[in-house]
Amino acid sequence: MRHEIAPRSGAGFELREGQTLTVYDPRGEQVADLLAYAKADLREVISSGRTLDYASRLFLTTGDPLYSNRSNVMLEIVEDTVGRHDFLLTPCSKDTFRIIYGDTDPHRGCFGNLAAALEPWGIAADSIPTAFNCFMNVGVDGETGAITVDPPKSRAGDRIAFVARMDLIIGLTACSALQSNNGSFKPIEYEVTD
Amino acid sequence: MRHEIAPRSGAGFELREGQTLTVYDPRGEQVADLLAYAKADLREVISSGRTLDYASRLFLTTGDPLYSNRSNVMLEIVEDTVGRHDFLLTPCSKDTFRIIYGDTDPHRGCFGNLAAALEPWGIAADSIPTAFNCFMNVGVDGETGAITVDPPKSRAGDRIAFVARMDLIIGLTACSALQSNNGSFKPIEYEVTD
Repeated sequence: MRHEIAPRSGAGFELREGQTLTVYDPRGEQVADLLAYAKADLREVISSGRTLDYASRLFLTTGDPLYSNRSNVMLEIVEDTVGRHDFLLTPCSKDTFRIIYGDTDPHRGCFGNLAAALEPWGIAADSIPTAFNCFMNVGVDGETGAITVDPPKSRAGDRIAFVARMDLIIGLTACSALQSNNGSFKPIEYEVTD
Repeated sequence: MRHEIAPRSGAGFELREGQTLTVYDPRGEQVADLLAYAKADLREVISSGRTLDYASRLFLTTGDPLYSNRSNVMLEIVEDTVGRHDFLLTPCSKDTFRIIYGDTDPHRGCFGNLAAALEPWGIAADSIPTAFNCFMNVGVDGETGAITVDPPKSRAGDRIAFVARMDLIIGLTACSALQSNNGSFKPIEYEVTD
């Protein structure tokens, strides 16, 4: 059964070891921020720094594991019809919109949506690290280090699937930042299968 | 007064708002991992994801602020004689040496050194995020996303200085990974001035 995450919102759910989570971009060019916490100990959380270090690569795709801060594999990418995602930038937030966009009455963003979605498990906002940003297309200039947020390469129906390597609490959003989603806010869909 | 951090070790100390921390590479080609926690609430910690996002740049230098997970400025780089540091990769650890180097009896690395140095303030190992890696020279291929750990560009006597924008607990190391330090382990020095 597919679940929809409405534009600029988020969802929290449990994913058991061995289950597959598939994240769909139903309309194309829409980012979904993904977080994972170990159900057995919520202090164990997905780690961009460890994952990129062990992969020796910024761009992850099918076959790549996503590590926790304790260097355990939490998820493994098992299918990817896009091939370009981001694991550098933090979830957009009130502060993102204030600092980068200059908004005076900023939306709570993926950060606020994730905090609300994860609250039922007692996960605090301070415990939200850099998310794995499905479909987010972040370019890096190797010479200058300049980072650009470009339109996602995902088209309608594209997907990325992950197998859980431990019991997890998952946070997932339909991203709220204009630049990340080529100027419009669209839904995200996901499915959990055994 | 300059303090020495012996090769493959670490130090923890307090840095008051307005004080300057200068990190020296006395022999050249030696990395120092830097962490910062807000003294007023240790759940507020330096954030690579937020800092890189707001800078829109991977490589930081004089004038760049280092943000916390709450989007507050913790430190600002006020002097930098090298111009190349890393904020992508996690502190080297037992797991780094096991996974990347294949060591069977791995050193505890910067991660273990930081955990030990920060323990007196009650900071847990799980709360160690990606550090700001002074003098670490990480190359990124913008096309493939490949990450390479290259010899530091720092020469004997080079330094980077930070002003604290809040009261902080600092963790600082002389890095323990062969690749990061061009094959040898050297000391780091630091100085705190008002």
